[in-house]
Amino acid sequence: MCQLLGMNCNYPTDICFSFQGFAARGGRTDNHQDGWGIAFFEGTGCRLFLDNRPSIYSPIADLVLRYPIHATHVIAHIRRASVGPVAIENCHPFQRELWGRYWVFAHNGDVPGLHAGDCRFYKPVGQTDSERAFCLILDALRTAFPAGGATVREVHAVLKEITQSIAAHGIFNYLLSDGNFFFAHSSNNLCYVVRQSPFSSAHLIDQDLSVDFQALARPTDRVSIIATAPLTDNETWTPMKPGELLAFENGVPLKF
Amino acid sequence: MCQLLGMNCNYPTDICFSFQGFAARGGRTDNHQDGWGIAFFEGTGCRLFLDNRPSIYSPIADLVLRYPIHATHVIAHIRRASVGPVAIENCHPFQRELWGRYWVFAHNGDVPGLHAGDCRFYKPVGQTDSERAFCLILDALRTAFPAGGATVREVHAVLKEITQSIAAHGIFNYLLSDGNFFFAHSSNNLCYVVRQSPFSSAHLIDQDLSVDFQALARPTDRVSIIATAPLTDNETWTPMKPGELLAFENGVPLKF
Repeated sequence: MCQLLGMNCNYPTDICFSFQGFAARGGRTDNHQDGWGIAFFEGTGCRLFLDNRPSIYSPIADLVLRYPIHATHVIAHIRRASVGPVAIENCHPFQRELWGRYWVFAHNGDVPGLHAGDCRFYKPVGQTDSERAFCLILDALRTAFPAGGATVREVHAVLKEITQSIAAHGIFNYLLSDGNFFFAHSSNNLCYVVRQSPFSSAHLIDQDLSVDFQALARPTDRVSIIATAPLTDNETWTPMKPGELLAFENGVPLKF
Repeated sequence: MCQLLGMNCNYPTDICFSFQGFAARGGRTDNHQDGWGIAFFEGTGCRLFLDNRPSIYSPIADLVLRYPIHATHVIAHIRRASVGPVAIENCHPFQRELWGRYWVFAHNGDVPGLHAGDCRFYKPVGQTDSERAFCLILDALRTAFPAGGATVREVHAVLKEITQSIAAHGIFNYLLSDGNFFFAHSSNNLCYVVRQSPFSSAHLIDQDLSVDFQALARPTDRVSIIATAPLTDNETWTPMKPGELLAFENGVPLKF
């Protein structure tokens, strides 16, 4: 299994605090040692860092902690290999282009029985069931909206359908974003916290580290952090319901 | 304008020495300060590092120098913006997936008059003419070989045709690779050196640094370095001919 971390906010923000606790689970406080990755959206541009070393020993993870990249949409993943060997091509997040935007996807769980041969436009490069699922999702979106231009509600509806059919194969917790839309789906294990005014301080579970958002954030800032398991022990994390597909926008979950 | 650096070898090798000289041109010995990027193929996996800072000030370039990644196919680029603002989405190399492989492309020159609307399957994300050219190239390959499986000679033939039509718009020096194939096209400015037994030492032009390959390389190692301008002052660099499209394999250019 693996763990997911996502961030969606209304103003470019660095994820250093959350990533510090998350990266500790890649070998120190938990056993997700088979590689990791993180994608940052800066405007329409996307930077994807991948490493097949455990995040606690990775010089690239160390760089991500020391070099704060400000982004509105972030997706990170630490891997414990179930399907596919430990290799760069099997590290999440995966990236493809659709409608002139980069799409990024990371998955926690197992969805056995998906066939690479069923992927039409987008083909998997590595061996994971996760990448196959991603290709099938983008195939579905591309087929539904060949010219793009779909609203978040329209994308959500198509995503809901393809997600349900893939989730029938197993456990399908995922994060998906194109730097504009941000979706989170829970089969059984995903939760989120919304940080907004009035801000308070937060304390990591995986490391004895606190941050006082009251002192750092502006009154209008809004940040949602989405994770497999809560990262802090003094904030209220909302567990997502089984089968729930949320869209986040400007740091808050949308209600459809 | 920009500068290109590529490496193709028969055994995974790090590019630290060449990159050290190349990165100096991103603000110290030359004025390509508008971002940079480097892609490493490790098997079918691909790692792409991008930064919109000059390479001489970039913590990510510093990481690439300090953390030797061993790869058989590498493409790097330093940018001086001509078309499109300084932004991550306009940094080369660009990446897309075709036939279940990642393809990576970097360009030096200007090819005005390409229209994003002419890109069929692959759509540009940023504003550069370079990314449009890349999308048109992948469109052509996909159309010619919908199921993949083409040989290097077959890909070369299709590439030659689309390259000529794009090169008619201006200056089109480029490097293109999927981690298996490696192509270099020169409009007016690309050269290469093949390092193989008997090895000698090499001295950088942009920095007073030498390396003795005799002491480091194994007798069977073969490495081609392809660059806009020679990186060393004591090796024989072969200038490519105008309009020449070379395929490199196992560290040597192929003859068709």
